[in-house]
Amino acid sequence: MLSNKDKNARLFLMKKALSLDKKTRNLKKTRNELLQVAFVEIFSHGFQGVSIDEIVKKTNLTKGAFYHHFPTKLDLGYALVDEVITPMILNRWILPLKSLENPITGILLQIKKLIGSANPQQLKLGCPLNNLVQEMSSVDAGFNLRLNKALNIWINETNKLLKKAKKNGFLKKEINTKQVATFVVMAHEGFYGLLKGTADLKIFDALYNSLLLYFKSIQEEIQ
Amino acid sequence: MLSNKDKNARLFLMKKALSLDKKTRNLKKTRNELLQVAFVEIFSHGFQGVSIDEIVKKTNLTKGAFYHHFPTKLDLGYALVDEVITPMILNRWILPLKSLENPITGILLQIKKLIGSANPQQLKLGCPLNNLVQEMSSVDAGFNLRLNKALNIWINETNKLLKKAKKNGFLKKEINTKQVATFVVMAHEGFYGLLKGTADLKIFDALYNSLLLYFKSIQEEIQ
Repeated sequence: MLSNKDKNARLFLMKKALSLDKKTRNLKKTRNELLQVAFVEIFSHGFQGVSIDEIVKKTNLTKGAFYHHFPTKLDLGYALVDEVITPMILNRWILPLKSLENPITGILLQIKKLIGSANPQQLKLGCPLNNLVQEMSSVDAGFNLRLNKALNIWINETNKLLKKAKKNGFLKKEINTKQVATFVVMAHEGFYGLLKGTADLKIFDALYNSLLLYFKSIQEEIQ
Repeated sequence: MLSNKDKNARLFLMKKALSLDKKTRNLKKTRNELLQVAFVEIFSHGFQGVSIDEIVKKTNLTKGAFYHHFPTKLDLGYALVDEVITPMILNRWILPLKSLENPITGILLQIKKLIGSANPQQLKLGCPLNNLVQEMSSVDAGFNLRLNKALNIWINETNKLLKKAKKNGFLKKEINTKQVATFVVMAHEGFYGLLKGTADLKIFDALYNSLLLYFKSIQEEIQ
């Protein structure tokens, strides 16, 4: 049996652990709120088109809280790529396909769902990743590093899906899956890039139908 | 026979015509010099990253000469799209294919020549048109109008080439040539966009080999 002294010591440690836990949770919540607000603002106006003040103003937080998490605006931008945009790409384009036997059909399904059925106004804002690539890659080396990493995660994870499709006999043996994965990402970014210039949603049909024909040409013919 | 008075009058008019002609030539030359210098600077640093002073400094001209041709920096940007970039696209991607019986093979040849064999440093600067689309389309309505027009000229002229290929029996009858033309431009811009983020020239193989497979899938099989 524990002595009263031991009991008190244990109680003290438990309270401390709980309070630390709460502090960590609050810190995470604050960081998350800042990143979510920053994501929306930067998606709409560009990284260079938004100030820290404007972001803080759209939250219930103080500027001090902002600087606690992000000593500079660049730190916010880097965190946005690592903690918001990269997970978003995985959640949209990779994870829903992991359970499919033939992920190639899944790529087209996701394109139809996430682009073909998207809100036109949001679509015209572009792809959050592509926007930052075009705006910041040649401006800042730290951004360049993280954006390059995010693009390569997208390509490499798509490649893994295609390798599985190949292994399952859905893809012709001579097909270079890394090149297909790269082309799929390229087509996405080309779509968003062209949409910025033309604002013509009909170009979605060109993306979808062309990828459909392209995929047919690399798939193993079903006997 | 002409009287002396008539001769003098004719001489006067001829001199005046020659001088006007020279003046027009000089104006054209000046405008051309300004546009060429502006093209290089804006291609390297973005439209918003270059000042009128920096452009004028790289020419042998005065700031007065600049403002004579371009009352504002935006006027320069608009002229750049209409008078330099659009003709450049036609010269690179359309005119060399006009004489070909099957322009589809020509598209791949031009891609190999103009992208695959291009100077890597220049390639990494992107596509002059795509750069301006990403930077200025959502910033300025006048730019948006002209960039949209330039993209549509590229798409529509490619469409004309593809229609010819179809008429000549090289393209399957059910293929929507406008969609193919749109996808070709999309793939170009996707390539340049992705290259900005990855700086990896190997992605050219993904572009070339994927378009090759795609084209094969839409071409009429040769009997």
